[in-house]
Amino acid sequence: MTQMTEAKAGRITAEMKQVANKEGVSAEFIREQIAAGKIVIPANKNHQHLDPNGFGEGLTTKVNANFGTSEDYPEVDKELEKLEAAVEAGADAVMDLSTGDKITETRQAILAEAEVPLGTVPIYQATVETLQDDKAIVDLTVDDLFGVIEKQAQDGVDFITVHCGLTLETIRHLKEEGRVTDIVSRGGSFITGWMLHNDAENPLYEYYDRLLEIAYEYDVTLSLGDGLRPGSLADATDRSQIHELLVLGELVDRAREADVQVMVEGPGHVPFDQIETNIQLQKELCKGAPFYVLGPLVTDIAVGYDHIAAAIGGTMAASCGADFLCYVTPAEHIGLPNIEEVREGVIATKIAAHSADIAKGNSSAKKQDLQMAEARKALDWEQQIELAIDSKKAKESRAAHNQEIQDEDACSMCGSYCAMKIVDEAL
Amino acid sequence: MTQMTEAKAGRITAEMKQVANKEGVSAEFIREQIAAGKIVIPANKNHQHLDPNGFGEGLTTKVNANFGTSEDYPEVDKELEKLEAAVEAGADAVMDLSTGDKITETRQAILAEAEVPLGTVPIYQATVETLQDDKAIVDLTVDDLFGVIEKQAQDGVDFITVHCGLTLETIRHLKEEGRVTDIVSRGGSFITGWMLHNDAENPLYEYYDRLLEIAYEYDVTLSLGDGLRPGSLADATDRSQIHELLVLGELVDRAREADVQVMVEGPGHVPFDQIETNIQLQKELCKGAPFYVLGPLVTDIAVGYDHIAAAIGGTMAASCGADFLCYVTPAEHIGLPNIEEVREGVIATKIAAHSADIAKGNSSAKKQDLQMAEARKALDWEQQIELAIDSKKAKESRAAHNQEIQDEDACSMCGSYCAMKIVDEAL
Repeated sequence: MTQMTEAKAGRITAEMKQVANKEGVSAEFIREQIAAGKIVIPANKNHQHLDPNGFGEGLTTKVNANFGTSEDYPEVDKELEKLEAAVEAGADAVMDLSTGDKITETRQAILAEAEVPLGTVPIYQATVETLQDDKAIVDLTVDDLFGVIEKQAQDGVDFITVHCGLTLETIRHLKEEGRVTDIVSRGGSFITGWMLHNDAENPLYEYYDRLLEIAYEYDVTLSLGDGLRPGSLADATDRSQIHELLVLGELVDRAREADVQVMVEGPGHVPFDQIETNIQLQKELCKGAPFYVLGPLVTDIAVGYDHIAAAIGGTMAASCGADFLCYVTPAEHIGLPNIEEVREGVIATKIAAHSADIAKGNSSAKKQDLQMAEARKALDWEQQIELAIDSKKAKESRAAHNQEIQDEDACSMCGSYCAMKIVDEAL
Repeated sequence: MTQMTEAKAGRITAEMKQVANKEGVSAEFIREQIAAGKIVIPANKNHQHLDPNGFGEGLTTKVNANFGTSEDYPEVDKELEKLEAAVEAGADAVMDLSTGDKITETRQAILAEAEVPLGTVPIYQATVETLQDDKAIVDLTVDDLFGVIEKQAQDGVDFITVHCGLTLETIRHLKEEGRVTDIVSRGGSFITGWMLHNDAENPLYEYYDRLLEIAYEYDVTLSLGDGLRPGSLADATDRSQIHELLVLGELVDRAREADVQVMVEGPGHVPFDQIETNIQLQKELCKGAPFYVLGPLVTDIAVGYDHIAAAIGGTMAASCGADFLCYVTPAEHIGLPNIEEVREGVIATKIAAHSADIAKGNSSAKKQDLQMAEARKALDWEQQIELAIDSKKAKESRAAHNQEIQDEDACSMCGSYCAMKIVDEAL
């Protein structure tokens, strides 16, 4: 039984109630939306200590933070610190993208700690273990791959990215139309390498029913990955990307029929003026499935500031209907983020999510800003710090910027020429 | 004679040619747009060493950086360092908002150095000097005010913010409708205080012709300030703001008739979904005058990260037609920015301007991103650093993030599992 089985049968689960409480909506609304496939609650039966979150239409926009070990940076403890920093900064979900040498150990350690939903990309572990056995990526067997997926599901992973829509036909589009940056999805590149070498269809597509069975058993939410997501503005909204999205739409239908919760992943690098089209297309082709976007980045040149480029794209995407934003850190396109960059990435993405929620008319988001406006008018600095998206930073910054100031009510920006004060006296 | 006089007479000036070269458009196009009032080239006859820039329809989006002394931080040298940092980071114009005790000296020092257009807000100096004479703000005389404006014009200031649209009628709207944060424009607050105390019309409105005469003499571009710009999302797009904009539209007509170049300033704090309306309204009511916006900030709660909230709003605004973005730094709502924050503010705003230029189809902006995409595909790190919006930061960040890495072609994000490499081999 999955959340979807229960929802379709008209039953409200404990998880639906918890999400309804957090969102300030009725549990019945959550149930209806889950039954219709428009909201998912990734909640693996084996994830202990999970505090569930909902993702989808009618809910606040959620934020995901990625981390994980790599061959060059294999320490598990560092990743647990990133988990803590991400959640403290406001992440609603996290993904463990480990490719270091102790993937299972890392995941289990994260799952034991994480109260937020945890996602993974099982093809990473399947590929890394194949290479560790002194084989090539292309030697990965279908059973190896599904073995890893089953193991991760059993461990309690709440959602998995699976690039099921990357088919031989998608690759034909890629080859014929051409691209500047081809494939930038790591999982997508593994699968493409495998398919081309073995001259075979993508096993995640060919054996999709096998995937659905595992997902159903543990109530793992499928996050249908976009292996062909554009890696540069020049490649955005091209035939390969849209063909893959068409396939994903069909796979959404099949997941819903199987009572498996499903969301769809989206780009990537997208010019600001194409974001609305991308969101609308996904919502239509995938019949309202929750949309999980990476960025989108609205320029390719913001190296060192990609969290800002992503916050711009993310606000636009979420205000057009994207439900779930994957963070981008200042280290994107450079290397693995450190803890401070994880924090910055989460905060920038939270700003995008919150600003979009206001644009969509969410009353609790609007209330936060109204309270801040009132605190500003009252020159109540303690309250302003309390209401800030990052109170710690707000407090430190105020202290650092106002050491010389004579007027404690004001700030060094205007000093005694404070508009708030002058107008208050005048009116 | 002003740029506008020349343009209307069909003559192309040296400044028009310089701007045309920078923008990759014809000098005749610039001339036509200046004659129509849709482009301005702020270029005071007395500003030595000016490298002129154009602002308006059909040109790339420009970025302004503010700095200036205050009573608590009066050192002129610090402000000259901020000028240098802002221009190095890519600012197309700067404003000296000094309110310290040596305003004239500071301005003249900045003007001697600045090759970019310099703007000021003369009411600041007029007010500060009144207070220095042991008088109250409300004792400022009309002649004092115009004396300061004339002096600043004579010194070579290229554009001045003048809150001419803040009238008794605008204040009636403010009082009757009510607001959460009333007036947050410093200049607006000085004028409001003066008007209410003296029970008199705003001298910048009443004696607008006197202002036009000074502006004409030195070819100072008027930047019609929005004293009633909303200081919180709750106050956005209200009657006071829109009434002031109506008045500004009429004043644009009068400036154009007098051959005075004019642009219009805009908000402020605006919910993401109201930005398009704000831009469209300004462009219609002010008949295509260049639009200079502050942010807009899409949330009130991003204390410490307001440069990100402004980059989000600025991208939307510029893609809808705003021509000139005033930067917001991470110190906004906290205090005066330090040099590093000036840099961060400029870069974030440049990301917004550039992303919007791509959305508007600007070919040179698109080319920069295409080159970056090609450098990424080629794993050409030197080229990526060269093309980055902040090469210095990109270089430092790459070095810091990849100390442990074994594969020099790749980065620590994916290490040897580099999608670019895998797909290159597979395809």
